[in-house]
Amino acid sequence: MAHIHAEAKPVSRAQLTKAMGSSRGKVLTEVARLIEAGLLAEEGLAESEGGRPSTLIGIPRSAGLLVAVDIGATSINAALTTLGSKILAYRAESADVRFGPQPTLGRVKALVAELLEEQGASREDILAVGVGVPGPVEQATGLLTVPPIMPGWDRFPIRDVLVKEFAAPVFVDNDVNIMALGEHWGGVAKGVDDVIFLKIGTGIGSGIIIRGRIHRGIQGCAGDLGHVTVDPDGPTCTCGNRGCLEAMAAAPAMVRQAERCAREGESVILAEMLGEEGELTTRDIGEAARRGDNCALDVIRRSGRLVGQTLASVVSVLNPSLIVVGGGVSHIGNALLAEIRGAVYQRSLPLATRNLPVVMSELDDVAGVVGASVMAAEGALKVPS
Amino acid sequence: MAHIHAEAKPVSRAQLTKAMGSSRGKVLTEVARLIEAGLLAEEGLAESEGGRPSTLIGIPRSAGLLVAVDIGATSINAALTTLGSKILAYRAESADVRFGPQPTLGRVKALVAELLEEQGASREDILAVGVGVPGPVEQATGLLTVPPIMPGWDRFPIRDVLVKEFAAPVFVDNDVNIMALGEHWGGVAKGVDDVIFLKIGTGIGSGIIIRGRIHRGIQGCAGDLGHVTVDPDGPTCTCGNRGCLEAMAAAPAMVRQAERCAREGESVILAEMLGEEGELTTRDIGEAARRGDNCALDVIRRSGRLVGQTLASVVSVLNPSLIVVGGGVSHIGNALLAEIRGAVYQRSLPLATRNLPVVMSELDDVAGVVGASVMAAEGALKVPS
Repeated sequence: MAHIHAEAKPVSRAQLTKAMGSSRGKVLTEVARLIEAGLLAEEGLAESEGGRPSTLIGIPRSAGLLVAVDIGATSINAALTTLGSKILAYRAESADVRFGPQPTLGRVKALVAELLEEQGASREDILAVGVGVPGPVEQATGLLTVPPIMPGWDRFPIRDVLVKEFAAPVFVDNDVNIMALGEHWGGVAKGVDDVIFLKIGTGIGSGIIIRGRIHRGIQGCAGDLGHVTVDPDGPTCTCGNRGCLEAMAAAPAMVRQAERCAREGESVILAEMLGEEGELTTRDIGEAARRGDNCALDVIRRSGRLVGQTLASVVSVLNPSLIVVGGGVSHIGNALLAEIRGAVYQRSLPLATRNLPVVMSELDDVAGVVGASVMAAEGALKVPS
Repeated sequence: MAHIHAEAKPVSRAQLTKAMGSSRGKVLTEVARLIEAGLLAEEGLAESEGGRPSTLIGIPRSAGLLVAVDIGATSINAALTTLGSKILAYRAESADVRFGPQPTLGRVKALVAELLEEQGASREDILAVGVGVPGPVEQATGLLTVPPIMPGWDRFPIRDVLVKEFAAPVFVDNDVNIMALGEHWGGVAKGVDDVIFLKIGTGIGSGIIIRGRIHRGIQGCAGDLGHVTVDPDGPTCTCGNRGCLEAMAAAPAMVRQAERCAREGESVILAEMLGEEGELTTRDIGEAARRGDNCALDVIRRSGRLVGQTLASVVSVLNPSLIVVGGGVSHIGNALLAEIRGAVYQRSLPLATRNLPVVMSELDDVAGVVGASVMAAEGALKVPS
């Protein structure tokens, strides 16, 4: 199943034969058998390459469902997907992980129940559950380890709680790792083996893909760019240290600066937005920048520059093929990307940045649930990882 | 052969049986056959664990020789080793890669000829050649790519020149990568899967081992920490940029600062040394620091701090198990290590540094030739890498 799953999208019988390295006859027989068992299904026609278009084979809903959950610092995204990680139903809502594991996982259970009902499915249809959480996860146990922004979650048995709820295997990983996995599986990083996925939102983190696999590190905290010290005299971070990249450049820092601009009369546009809404968001900052507001542009540039500078040494060390930027703040778009690119190009070895694209996430809000689904599928199918 | 080679040191027949996953009878038969063919040999007894000590089996000289060469910016180290990467003969001499490929490779050929003669061996005994060079190497071609400190070497066909000379397969990689490989194979990083090997000498670079293998990156320039910009207004680097870590913290920068201290009367000890020798080395700086000289200590601390600060983001991203410091400047020892450690611990995610040893290279000057030999052996034996 590894090859079928790794192919993600429906494939033709000819492609399957090639991928499996088996004889055509054997593949045709097996496909027929799996279709009969409801584990594969015909899903339309391939684009014709001149001759008769081939029929595409995919993994249908009848093969079973996956629950994919992406718990962010301030949101819960949940999806039901096929075993082939096709999203069948999706819900996103605001949340706050600081309320602790019980209320958060309670919402997860409720959301999944809604999704199952919507799909006319039951818990018995669930093959596996994949969950992303905004902190470092010890792979052996699935436990969060000293998560800086998740008080009350340290070593909380997420896996046990959800196994009890769903009676299916549960796989837990860091939220940025699953976003990277999603993007690698079905987004802009598809087929690229060495990728840095950078998430900028309430926090800053990265998912590192090396040789096609997530690199987790010895304590499971690889990719944690957010708590690199950028300025030892900088503001205190949620982790207790001072001047971490996250404390200086993530959404709350940007909003703080923008609100100060608004209050101190430096920006008419931001002041208007603040007056109307009572508070600003990074979307407001992006919008103000697009309308030519210099304060908003400064806030974006400062953030992008700090992120890019921190990223530069990582680029020099890993010499990746691609940097993908995702997370809420990435919606700001080109002004932010340009600044990150500039700082990375300026501060890394020129050879390492010669052909280094820095691009936006393609899967965007669903990168996390797609990755969680892929993780669940790989776990359920025991693809060696 | 992969397992035998990966074991590095002589092993007992029992260990071999376990490593090969074969039956004891089959291994005994094969070992006897290989001993008869001169490809294995008995090499003394294992330490007894209570019972009768086992006889150890190693790869003898008669199996063939490897040429291992470590070309640094200012030195050439060359060795003849067994296929099991045991050094049989070794030569080190000063050199200057800036003189270009022809004179440098001429010296390599002459050194290897001397080593062969010393060993009563001939070029026909050479199974493979491993060469490390101080610049980024494109793996597919074995060509150096825009090496900052090696004018005249860009895309020079080192491999072709040496294949012609030695009539054996030649494998080329970056010098720090082979040092990391050597240290991972037979030094302090043995058996550790995620390691950063940091070399501080004339230049600064790192060799990154991920999941037990060298990580080279898409252009083969992974690990190049030396050209991360530390201070955009800093001194001009050999690469043309300003304020690279290397330009700020490697041996030449340290010597420059120490000589200034000596000339400006800030350090009596350094002034004496400079008077006697006409120039200072990092060994002098280390010696002065051990004698309590504050200027020398400041130079070491500044360098260690800059290196540690740059390393911090790499540690946060890779969450490695071990950092090994090698290269000429590492001889300074604890004063330098302590400062690197301090900066890494202060500026990385606490979880990532909780159990992170920062230690000196064990193989020291021969890390490079050991790694070059291991690379040659793996190449010659076509161990999938």
